Amino acid sequence: MLGRTYDSQVCSVAGSLELVGERWTLLIVRDAFMGARRFEDFQRRTGMARNVLTDRLGRLVDDGIFKRVPYQEHPVRFEYRLTEKGIDLWPVIISLLQWGDRYVYPGRAPVLLVHKRCGGAVDDHRICETCGAKLGPRDVEARQGIGGGMVASRVASA
Amino acid sequence: MLGRTYDSQVCSVAGSLELVGERWTLLIVRDAFMGARRFEDFQRRTGMARNVLTDRLGRLVDDGIFKRVPYQEHPVRFEYRLTEKGIDLWPVIISLLQWGDRYVYPGRAPVLLVHKRCGGAVDDHRICETCGAKLGPRDVEARQGIGGGMVASRVASA
Repeated sequence: MLGRTYDSQVCSVAGSLELVGERWTLLIVRDAFMGARRFEDFQRRTGMARNVLTDRLGRLVDDGIFKRVPYQEHPVRFEYRLTEKGIDLWPVIISLLQWGDRYVYPGRAPVLLVHKRCGGAVDDHRICETCGAKLGPRDVEARQGIGGGMVASRVASA
Repeated sequence: MLGRTYDSQVCSVAGSLELVGERWTLLIVRDAFMGARRFEDFQRRTGMARNVLTDRLGRLVDDGIFKRVPYQEHPVRFEYRLTEKGIDLWPVIISLLQWGDRYVYPGRAPVLLVHKRCGGAVDDHRICETCGAKLGPRDVEARQGIGGGMVASRVASA
């Protein structure tokens, strides 16, 4: 049991959720891990209203989770890349994905995560089932599963 | 990059977020891991409005993440316990907690997670830094960190 001194306001879970505890926000982060960089990519993949997407991307930049990087000069256009802080959300995304595989799409996971180097499956601890390596976002690719349609992924970072 | 066949609607991340992609919902799950079982516990810890809490707990029961268990007969009163499906959200909660420790409370984590059996710290892969065991929710307890106030936890399951 908790002691009486427990303060649910001073809590890292609550603190994280203040920054990313919104469905659209985590879907934007998901799409960045899947290679999205430009506004149009995020818009097409999430299907979000443009004004909502503009707002969420702006907040994610303000919070240091994405950074704007120019890709064109006349006129200046920017793409959105995950910062290291954003890339460190990978375990959150993977844990949501694995829970969804188990309970939302049981037996028909839309995406299979595999260790790039050896092709092993990624277990619940983000460890390669084949070679035992502890895996990070740059070690893993997504292959098409039974229920879905993505064929590969990359980390959309600088 | 993603192939053209990518369908962001058929996605386990999105599927999970449809069930738990709401800040209050994950805070209720967090509190269950910290020992909350009764309506009043959740209400006091989250500070949620009672009608919102009633709604969220009802949905969590409907979605099979919590179950109602009677603890009193005249009148009948229920407490809320995580099901196995709910307990399997532990990696989601832990990954949010660890990200928050790093970026919201750097150097002053409110809670320290330790492996009960050996006292080792819990790494990013939910592996004990001391003995190397892969850890689940029943293997870990929360101790008071620098910034916070909780002293222990337990899994509030049947």
